[in-house]
Amino acid sequence: MKEKIWPLIKNIREKSPLVHNITNYVVMNNTANALLAIGASPVMAHAEDEVQDMVKIADSLVINIGTLSEKWVNAMHLALKQANSMKKPTVLDPVGAGATPYRNRTTADLLKTGTFSAIRGNASEIMALESTAYQTKGVDSIYTSENAVKAGQNLNKKSGSVICISGAVDYVISSNQIIKIMNGHPLMGRVTGMGCIATALIGAFIAVEENTVLAVSGAMALMSIAGELAVTRSDGPGSLHMHFLDKLYNITEEEFMQTVKIESNNV
Amino acid sequence: MKEKIWPLIKNIREKSPLVHNITNYVVMNNTANALLAIGASPVMAHAEDEVQDMVKIADSLVINIGTLSEKWVNAMHLALKQANSMKKPTVLDPVGAGATPYRNRTTADLLKTGTFSAIRGNASEIMALESTAYQTKGVDSIYTSENAVKAGQNLNKKSGSVICISGAVDYVISSNQIIKIMNGHPLMGRVTGMGCIATALIGAFIAVEENTVLAVSGAMALMSIAGELAVTRSDGPGSLHMHFLDKLYNITEEEFMQTVKIESNNV
Amino acid sequence: MKEKIWPLIKNIREKSPLVHNITNYVVMNNTANALLAIGASPVMAHAEDEVQDMVKIADSLVINIGTLSEKWVNAMHLALKQANSMKKPTVLDPVGAGATPYRNRTTADLLKTGTFSAIRGNASEIMALESTAYQTKGVDSIYTSENAVKAGQNLNKKSGSVICISGAVDYVISSNQIIKIMNGHPLMGRVTGMGCIATALIGAFIAVEENTVLAVSGAMALMSIAGELAVTRSDGPGSLHMHFLDKLYNITEEEFMQTVKIESNNV
Repeated sequence: MKEKIWPLIKNIREKSPLVHNITNYVVMNNTANALLAIGASPVMAHAEDEVQDMVKIADSLVINIGTLSEKWVNAMHLALKQANSMKKPTVLDPVGAGATPYRNRTTADLLKTGTFSAIRGNASEIMALESTAYQTKGVDSIYTSENAVKAGQNLNKKSGSVICISGAVDYVISSNQIIKIMNGHPLMGRVTGMGCIATALIGAFIAVEENTVLAVSGAMALMSIAGELAVTRSDGPGSLHMHFLDKLYNITEEEFMQTVKIESNNV
Repeated sequence: MKEKIWPLIKNIREKSPLVHNITNYVVMNNTANALLAIGASPVMAHAEDEVQDMVKIADSLVINIGTLSEKWVNAMHLALKQANSMKKPTVLDPVGAGATPYRNRTTADLLKTGTFSAIRGNASEIMALESTAYQTKGVDSIYTSENAVKAGQNLNKKSGSVICISGAVDYVISSNQIIKIMNGHPLMGRVTGMGCIATALIGAFIAVEENTVLAVSGAMALMSIAGELAVTRSDGPGSLHMHFLDKLYNITEEEFMQTVKIESNNV
Repeated sequence: MKEKIWPLIKNIREKSPLVHNITNYVVMNNTANALLAIGASPVMAHAEDEVQDMVKIADSLVINIGTLSEKWVNAMHLALKQANSMKKPTVLDPVGAGATPYRNRTTADLLKTGTFSAIRGNASEIMALESTAYQTKGVDSIYTSENAVKAGQNLNKKSGSVICISGAVDYVISSNQIIKIMNGHPLMGRVTGMGCIATALIGAFIAVEENTVLAVSGAMALMSIAGELAVTRSDGPGSLHMHFLDKLYNITEEEFMQTVKIESNNV
């Protein structure tokens, strides 16, 4: 699979897809920066008065529930329906699902309203989406990504979405494949919004590639590799964030191909 | 004109004008940082319950429509009227005008409610403000700044505002002058909110200088030069953002005067 | 006191307390990053529909009024009551108190609704909380921290909260103690949200330490020392912010103990 990913990165740089984000306050700035760094064109818009119009001109839609409130949830439903009706690709980030009943309700409602091409979360979030019996510590997982693979497969069956569980190892799950990406570094967990950035990058990849498993795997590989390479020059999370954005921008095919560790299994 | 700009930069450092921003979620942090870096004192406040009181103590008002919703628009109207009634300088950033009818409506309504000392946008935004026939790709321009000069002149006639079109070349347009600023670097477009930062800096310059053409030209020159100088030390958009903030803070008169490329034409 | 602080820093790294923040848009990203850098687990949630549930699983609550609006204020009241009823530690950051009547009203109402373990502000904010006769310049102080010690003592008596006044010298005030912390650097004032970060760090320290004076002093010492050490490698506010986050993460016991300047007085 890995030789199919670099062409996607090139495509994003050339086509600069417009990625419409309805996302949380914490990460708006750094998800926009990450999208710009890979060559995409981000737009953030959440007003009920305009989300449908923005979806119409966008190439993909990212919905992230990190900092919810009522009007934002309404806008997410409007945007999701619009994207589905136009068959535009969509991705959900269920930030903090499992932490509060409100987040569980919101994600359940969104999954009733429409469909997502992909869903990306940490282990706790994916497990909570599959069964509200599971808890999340705020927005941080209390499980490893391995723990959530079964839940991810169930969630894939229920939702039809490609499921991505991020963690030390990232899993990308469809009905007949499990992709494992073994890049990244634990220090990435000390920079806020790294999960949200991963989801935003998925938004750019699904905008240029119809094979969602490939697109999601490409986004997660680029994300993890940029982080892994950035860590080598970093003294802590502050410099990591800077070098990470630089690397998203200046990564070469050689660096990518030499670093990527990806494994594809049919199931 | 260039020898009149450095004194403005010194004035901002000495007087530390209070710049009231009603701005978008994506850029609140980095516009505040940019204003602090040049020596101004930023405040962000958007509640209908307080914007008028904040305008009363502020030295200028920045309105940026990047992430709109109903209550924020109401607050923008209240703040603009208050600023106009006290003859305080104001600047509008019509982020994404041309992307959705809601943004077109909002900017048109604001221009009916009151007047702005200056309006700064990219080419698409300025063209959309002048005629809603023009489109914007999310928040990114699909035209060069040259393309928008005619629209900028018309918008200046209609609105009475000094118009600034930013791009590879920045234009500052009044009824009898066109200023061209030929600094900057394309990598600046890969950092989110650079346009919004330019508008925020205009907010600081109009707070210390009554000649709006001079103030806007000064802000755009400082912005572009700081970016241009920062790029020389940067590996990508992450380090550019950092060096840019440093340079806004530590730029010297010598650096400024050696780098600035500005051209003033009477029309 | 200083030998009691390092163990708190170790505790945070080991226990990773969940700190619930209802905070302002400007600083959400960098307060989350600062909390992650010291090893805490931040969550930002403001919906009336979920703040009580989030408080239930959190180890402490941070309320910051930097960018107010009606629904957020309602959520702050709900969260504060919930935290008080469960005896969870709380801290208030009265950003911009003294700048507008709305901010004065909001802080007064919060202090009627419940109690805070600690309140941290700059001199103007603390003076405005004690008496609305005092003014704040937007969110920036117009007094030195020394000027506010008397007001801090009165506010401590009225509210029962430990009062922290930050400035060139930081003061931590209880009914029988005044702690002075003499670290930090003026350049920190050119990075937005440094005060808000201090308050967020207090949120992490009070989550692991019941002695609030010690916890607040520890947070302020770590904050000021990390800033002071970061300045030595910085060319301006951009690089300072980066090095500051790195230092929060990688500071050693030796660095801390060699740099800290703290003075404890009984009153």
